[in-house]
Amino acid sequence: MDYVKSFLETDARIIDLSADFRFRSANEYAKWYGTEHKYPELLERAVYGLPELHKEAIKKAKLVACPGCLPTSAILPLAPLVTNKLIDLEHIVIDSKIGSSAGGHKADLSTHHPERAGAVRSYKPTGHRHIGEIEQELGILTNEKVKVAFSPHAIELIRGIMTTIHTYLKKEIKEVDVWKIYRSFYANCPFIRYVKEKEGIHRYPEPKNVAGTNFCDIGFELDSNIPRLVVMSAIDNLVKGSGGQAIQCMNLMFNLDEKMGLWVPSLHPA
Amino acid sequence: MDYVKSFLETDARIIDLSADFRFRSANEYAKWYGTEHKYPELLERAVYGLPELHKEAIKKAKLVACPGCLPTSAILPLAPLVTNKLIDLEHIVIDSKIGSSAGGHKADLSTHHPERAGAVRSYKPTGHRHIGEIEQELGILTNEKVKVAFSPHAIELIRGIMTTIHTYLKKEIKEVDVWKIYRSFYANCPFIRYVKEKEGIHRYPEPKNVAGTNFCDIGFELDSNIPRLVVMSAIDNLVKGSGGQAIQCMNLMFNLDEKMGLWVPSLHPA
Amino acid sequence: MDYVKSFLETDARIIDLSADFRFRSANEYAKWYGTEHKYPELLERAVYGLPELHKEAIKKAKLVACPGCLPTSAILPLAPLVTNKLIDLEHIVIDSKIGSSAGGHKADLSTHHPERAGAVRSYKPTGHRHIGEIEQELGILTNEKVKVAFSPHAIELIRGIMTTIHTYLKKEIKEVDVWKIYRSFYANCPFIRYVKEKEGIHRYPEPKNVAGTNFCDIGFELDSNIPRLVVMSAIDNLVKGSGGQAIQCMNLMFNLDEKMGLWVPSLHPA
Amino acid sequence: MDYVKSFLETDARIIDLSADFRFRSANEYAKWYGTEHKYPELLERAVYGLPELHKEAIKKAKLVACPGCLPTSAILPLAPLVTNKLIDLEHIVIDSKIGSSAGGHKADLSTHHPERAGAVRSYKPTGHRHIGEIEQELGILTNEKVKVAFSPHAIELIRGIMTTIHTYLKKEIKEVDVWKIYRSFYANCPFIRYVKEKEGIHRYPEPKNVAGTNFCDIGFELDSNIPRLVVMSAIDNLVKGSGGQAIQCMNLMFNLDEKMGLWVPSLHPA
Repeated sequence: MDYVKSFLETDARIIDLSADFRFRSANEYAKWYGTEHKYPELLERAVYGLPELHKEAIKKAKLVACPGCLPTSAILPLAPLVTNKLIDLEHIVIDSKIGSSAGGHKADLSTHHPERAGAVRSYKPTGHRHIGEIEQELGILTNEKVKVAFSPHAIELIRGIMTTIHTYLKKEIKEVDVWKIYRSFYANCPFIRYVKEKEGIHRYPEPKNVAGTNFCDIGFELDSNIPRLVVMSAIDNLVKGSGGQAIQCMNLMFNLDEKMGLWVPSLHPA
Repeated sequence: MDYVKSFLETDARIIDLSADFRFRSANEYAKWYGTEHKYPELLERAVYGLPELHKEAIKKAKLVACPGCLPTSAILPLAPLVTNKLIDLEHIVIDSKIGSSAGGHKADLSTHHPERAGAVRSYKPTGHRHIGEIEQELGILTNEKVKVAFSPHAIELIRGIMTTIHTYLKKEIKEVDVWKIYRSFYANCPFIRYVKEKEGIHRYPEPKNVAGTNFCDIGFELDSNIPRLVVMSAIDNLVKGSGGQAIQCMNLMFNLDEKMGLWVPSLHPA
Repeated sequence: MDYVKSFLETDARIIDLSADFRFRSANEYAKWYGTEHKYPELLERAVYGLPELHKEAIKKAKLVACPGCLPTSAILPLAPLVTNKLIDLEHIVIDSKIGSSAGGHKADLSTHHPERAGAVRSYKPTGHRHIGEIEQELGILTNEKVKVAFSPHAIELIRGIMTTIHTYLKKEIKEVDVWKIYRSFYANCPFIRYVKEKEGIHRYPEPKNVAGTNFCDIGFELDSNIPRLVVMSAIDNLVKGSGGQAIQCMNLMFNLDEKMGLWVPSLHPA
Repeated sequence: MDYVKSFLETDARIIDLSADFRFRSANEYAKWYGTEHKYPELLERAVYGLPELHKEAIKKAKLVACPGCLPTSAILPLAPLVTNKLIDLEHIVIDSKIGSSAGGHKADLSTHHPERAGAVRSYKPTGHRHIGEIEQELGILTNEKVKVAFSPHAIELIRGIMTTIHTYLKKEIKEVDVWKIYRSFYANCPFIRYVKEKEGIHRYPEPKNVAGTNFCDIGFELDSNIPRLVVMSAIDNLVKGSGGQAIQCMNLMFNLDEKMGLWVPSLHPA
């Protein structure tokens, strides 16, 4: 926080990977981080560093605050749906499955192999601090208050997040129109891909298929039993989290090819 | 189906592990299995073989139809909540994470190790046929129509299911009262355990900790951000699925100790 | 070491799980542990706590020093071969594959899940301190100097060791005679099992099949290309290491059933 | 075999990924493959497609027979040692650890996830047919008969082989001289790397660190207890097996940069 303040007084353009400047509201920051923000007046100078949502603002930004992997995996599949007023904003359930590398480099009992291997572990079923960012970004898109249910799960995996989002539809929609909404919303986003096949074993997004890449794969399915739309995303948390976002934002800020340094294929099988 | 019909004419007591007699309604059977039931008149003679819900009926039953692992992992944590009218029946989201052994013994591409290992795969995000059973059993408990959103995910795991259930509360409730509801509902159920710790890495149910056993571990957490109650269960699909259920039902039907042959400890770490 | 000394002055019978009293020679202790033994005169009072080799001595012992998992997995399959002068003592190669729980409870980078998962890691290809014990025990059996090549490998596994031992035969032998040697040597050893099938996928010992148990599964195969005999063992390092050995030794020391508390089945699949 | 014969009559240059033309001797082919070679007269026209050993011959070859992953992982670390007459040719023990993708695309019980996951399985401890190729190539280098002990093990891993080779030294050698032998032998081989660190957790070759690449990482350690040299290699079987070899050979045959299409970095952690 102090560094960012001092850098703002220089000519430098800043890409911040911490959570300090992701919030537009100092109250929200205090609510989720349990401490007052020291420089609330600076919050309005920051741009939320998710290129798929704020590309033009990032290009001109002095300070970009890049989101981490979990909010990325939730916001990207939801953004087109809330923008298009398609879903019930009161009942959005985000259920994430996440690999061990998301916990960082520090070894402790929770990442000790005999305990972590083979785990399917709910570690923060309610109250996760990234909820605040997700609600903020979706709220901006739809101009309404959004409240999300978000529960991440640690599973046996090193790299990767798969996020399943259960939404309830406000009105009926056809599959072809869901396709149109996504394709239109992410028309100029090279790292958004769609995975939705009728057969085979890779019909929906899967972390294995994005490992090592900056892609966010998105898929969906309509439910005929209840008016529900399930949307799914897969990312590699070590790339399309704050790290890959930082590179992608830097490319935009310095008028470079957005894909530079990030355009790598993935392995299969992995 | 034909075997069951012929056995019903004998003195035998029948424990059926197929899906043929799990439904009370022939229409529901036809809806989820895509074919007409050949003996709709026999459906009323079957008891749904989940001992925690139908113990007395099972004891006297001529025909018991044991449910499989996925419905078990969903119905058990939900039953006390719907019975006590605690949750919004229109917005129940069941998100399951499941090991490879649930797919059975037959090898195909979906279980081929290079494809299946490290997978986080949504294979039936909507329309899974076990939804019908879950809706039936919860509906019976609450005397209202229940519609559930159910999405299972194949993850890297051999044995085990973890099911996370996202529910919305009809009215505020205290944690102590959630405890009371569960403890009262499952007062005489030796295979129901609760896992809910304030600290440590095993705060909620986890498949590793029930591997090889007939236990259904249940945990929960209230959400202070929105009126939500998250309930979680963990079972070993190869025991507390139709197989373990069959043994437990047999014990009840023949007036044996309900736990006989099933009272084994689990390993840690596993 | 000091505790053992003080306990030896009491009536207590002692089962030591440390490495302090496993060696018969203070020189060997100093060689492998890099420090002088404080009570070399006590070494002769200890019995090496491997019941399959020293059952009668353990029954009467005042002090039993239980070996850990790696020496157990190497000594048991080799003991019948060296005792029967079957193999070249100059060229014994022991290649072990071992799970993460062998490293104990303390979390560090080497057991940090993102680094440890999927590892196939040689961490001590030469100079492992357990070589000394293996050479001692085999030397006692054959009354000759034995030198072994021993290299353990950390692999993706929580519980279990598989040890492959490559031996060169002194003279030709038929398969049936290898069987006889093993069956005769371990005639009264309830925890030794043999795994050697002509077909199927479980033809040789495998850690999965002993997980949670005190069994040491042994298998072998003769090589027709060169005069070689490959012997293999599988144990669960958390049972048939020093822990399970301690229980088995206690049973013997107090005239209890050797199998008491240890006679549990294993899971399949696991 | 028939295709190769017919292609040899054209102007085409042939890269064969089958085992048909890897042997120089029709007798050896018959011994290991259990059937007579149909065109023994063509064997002398083929070059064994391991670029690190036969680069000049491959450049001019009409027919190149690329070896698979297991022989590659064994021959490359051994070649400098046998060429320099450093090791006892009678006691070479090759112990390989291999991932599931080496078994190919076809699903069966041995690759069925519930059986294959967590496996440490010896499936061919003696008599593996790739022994013939290894003995041939090492014999050519040293002009002596070489007989190897070779035992592969299936372990929990998708991509990758780690091969540990236990050799006995003919005479004492210093570590610095082992380094010189390797560096000199592979002076112009871009895909050979050395991994040998004094500390840290990545001190020796490991499959994780070559996943997705054409590298063969080599490491070694001298044993001070007995005159032994342990050499280790790690490759990705899906690249530096016959597939990557074929590309590398094609590059050489057509005077392209040997690294073309193969010069990709690996992920960490993976």
